[in-house]
Parts: sequence; C-alpha cells; structure tokens
Amino acid sequence: MKVLAFDVFGTVVDWYGSIAREVQRLRLPVEPGQFALDWRAGYQPAMARVRSGELGWVRIDDLHRMILDELLLKHQISMDEEARRALNLVWHRLTPWPDTVGGLTRLKTRHTITTLSNGNISLLTEMAKRAGLPWDCILSAEVFRHYKPDPETYLGVCSVFDIPPQDMMLVASHKNDLDAARALGCRTAFIERPDEFGPTGAVDLAREPRFDHHARDLEDLARQLGC
Amino acid sequence: MKVLAFDVFGTVVDWYGSIAREVQRLRLPVEPGQFALDWRAGYQPAMARVRSGELGWVRIDDLHRMILDELLLKHQISMDEEARRALNLVWHRLTPWPDTVGGLTRLKTRHTITTLSNGNISLLTEMAKRAGLPWDCILSAEVFRHYKPDPETYLGVCSVFDIPPQDMMLVASHKNDLDAARALGCRTAFIERPDEFGPTGAVDLAREPRFDHHARDLEDLARQLGC
Repeated sequence: MKVLAFDVFGTVVDWYGSIAREVQRLRLPVEPGQFALDWRAGYQPAMARVRSGELGWVRIDDLHRMILDELLLKHQISMDEEARRALNLVWHRLTPWPDTVGGLTRLKTRHTITTLSNGNISLLTEMAKRAGLPWDCILSAEVFRHYKPDPETYLGVCSVFDIPPQDMMLVASHKNDLDAARALGCRTAFIERPDEFGPTGAVDLAREPRFDHHARDLEDLARQLGC
Repeated sequence: MKVLAFDVFGTVVDWYGSIAREVQRLRLPVEPGQFALDWRAGYQPAMARVRSGELGWVRIDDLHRMILDELLLKHQISMDEEARRALNLVWHRLTPWPDTVGGLTRLKTRHTITTLSNGNISLLTEMAKRAGLPWDCILSAEVFRHYKPDPETYLGVCSVFDIPPQDMMLVASHKNDLDAARALGCRTAFIERPDEFGPTGAVDLAREPRFDHHARDLEDLARQLGC
C-alpha cells in the first residue's frame, strides 16, 4: 500500500473542542458546544447543494461563512464584517488530537501521507503549518472540484499517484466516508474518535469487519501497519 | 507578503546533474550531460502542444516519457518497458541544490511556501519526501490544468490562498516565468543558478531592476527577506 489518504475534520483534528473554545473566548451569548455542533451541522446540507449542482463550486471557507451568518442571525448576535471573517477562520486553526502528530510522523516513514478533506487547500495548509501536521501532500475536494463522498475524490487521489484503488487506504472516523472509498476498491482504516461531537455526543464506534483496520487512534494505526 | 511560490526544476533542484548521474549509472551509450539537456529540451515543445490545445491535459510524467521514447529511438538504445518506466521516474528523484533545504526552512518561518511547478503532484510529492523539502503545500500545473506561463497558474495560487497578486511572490531562476507572474501583479525573486544547464551551459544571470529581489541562492533570499 502506497498512499494513506486522511479525512481531516474529526479524524485528525478536534473541531468541536476548537470551535467551542473560540466561542467561549469571544464570550458570545450562546452555549459554546452547541454553537460548534450547529455550525458543523450546517455543513452537510451546504455541501449537498454543491454536490447536487444547485450551487457551482463553493469552497468550504465560503460554506462555513454562509452557515455562520445564519447562526448569528438566529441567535441575534451582532458582529461586524472583520470579526465575522476572523471567527470564520477558526476552521484554519483547529487543533489536532493528542496522538495525531506522533501517529502521522510514524505512518509517514513507510507511506505517503496526504489529506483528502472537504476543507479547502488554504485551510488545510494553514492548519498543518500551525499544528505541525507533517503531510507529504495536501489534497482537497478543491483540487477535484467534487466533495466527498463523490467518487471523483477518492479516484482523484489514485489518479494523482497513478495507483490502483487497492494501493490507497482511506483513514477516517466516519463510516459513510469509508464505505464510499471501499465501494471503489480502496482500503479502509476506521479511527475511533469518541469525543468528536463533544462529551455527550453519540458516536458509532462499533467494529465493522468490512473495514481493513479498526484503530483506537493514529498511533495504534501506525502500530498495526508496522511503522 | 503571505505566500512564496517556487518554480522547482532548476530553481530548487538540479535536474541536469541528477539526470546525467542516472544516465552514467545505467551506462547508456550516450554523453550523459547531453542526454540530460536533450531530455529537458523536449519539454517546452511538448508542453506547448498541451498549451495550444493540440493535446488535452497530459501530465509531465507522460510528457517526459514521450520525449524519452523519442530519445531512445534516436540513439538506437533498446530498453524494455520496465526499465523505461524506472528511468522516467528519475524526475521524481532530482536532488536539491546545497542551499535549498536550509533556505526553504528559513523562508518557511515567516511565509507560506508552496511549489508552483509544471511537474505533476506525485512527482513533486515524491521529490519532497526523498529530499526533505519542507513545503507547506504542493501546488502544480496539474491542479490548475494549465502549464506555466499561462496566467491561470499564478492566479490559481492567489485564488487558492484568497490573496491579491501583490501578496504572492514567485521565486524562480527563469526570467520568462518571473515576467509572466509580474505582468499579473505578483512580486518576483530571481535566483541565480549558474550550473542549471551544466558546467558549460549558458545562463542569463544579469540583474534586472524590474524584479523585486535578485539572490545568489535561497539562503541569500532568506537573508534578504529577514528570515
């Protein structure tokens, strides 16, 4: 197996905790964790509008901003343009899970490690620079002009690296993402992220025999892959 | 200035020396330096066929292979498919100039550093992994489906990072590349690479006031930019 492609939001970085901390720091009059969940919940319907063709190509930075504007309106929070722009960029500053940097560093010794995220390239680049994520390459839905789980994204990685699907493994904490890759012949590694949706959020961590690997975290995956 | 975008072949890595050493190692019955020059010389006409629309999108790996096949035919060298494929991948293994890794590491402390090369993504990724080139991001003609000096490449970098052209600086050892970026409002840094075309190759190193910086090498550029 040559290339490991990583989902990022949730799998590699803790969006819930990062957003909630920022909301708390700004003392917005909302419950920080719920605000994080609501912001994230707007993301799938927004992407669906791009995937269906209703919207042309829109990058995640702009989708996040559309959702933020709606949330601020709903909560009747007034915020000027500059502050909105700054808050929106919190998605560029998400913090990694404790095992992330160590796990990626080990995995990189024997494999090419790339992002395969719906996040845009500049978001992923800034995040990696701040957090020290040692990617070999940054690939994004933005490169393929398709959002996951569209097949063009997973097959796009294979095409970039000129490899058959079985030489690529998707690493993710979301079963629908892994299932879409698996349907195309890619290998799959499930990562447990019990706190992705905060301390009370429900997460499906059940072991599924159809995935090639099931790991507690990225250090555990590195161990399973002999790195 | 937020983003430094680097030309790669010649500016960051020594294609002439790397190819010549590989040809010598394989004991091909040709003059190694001339073979390197001929292989590289086929590259501009091949790209021109893509830029003109005569060919659809073809990545550099495949253009390099077309040129290699012609060169082997011209020199009446017989080589099987596997050996041709392996030789073609020498472009993924080009070695950096002595100042490259140190210079990039310094530049990275204050700027986002990305490739902007006509080389394809997998070529740039493998090269970076082998040589320890510390890119924040790998951008390529392959992302924009246009070869330099098409405006879509330079403007593509600005669009990815959501910045105006004056916040991007192209770093290159080729004046035509810099002029194309400058015409769009980008900043420019010329790097002297006297040995790019080998010990006897002619290179235009004259200082041009129209470029923002003129540096002996990447360490010198880092010094000029206060890194």
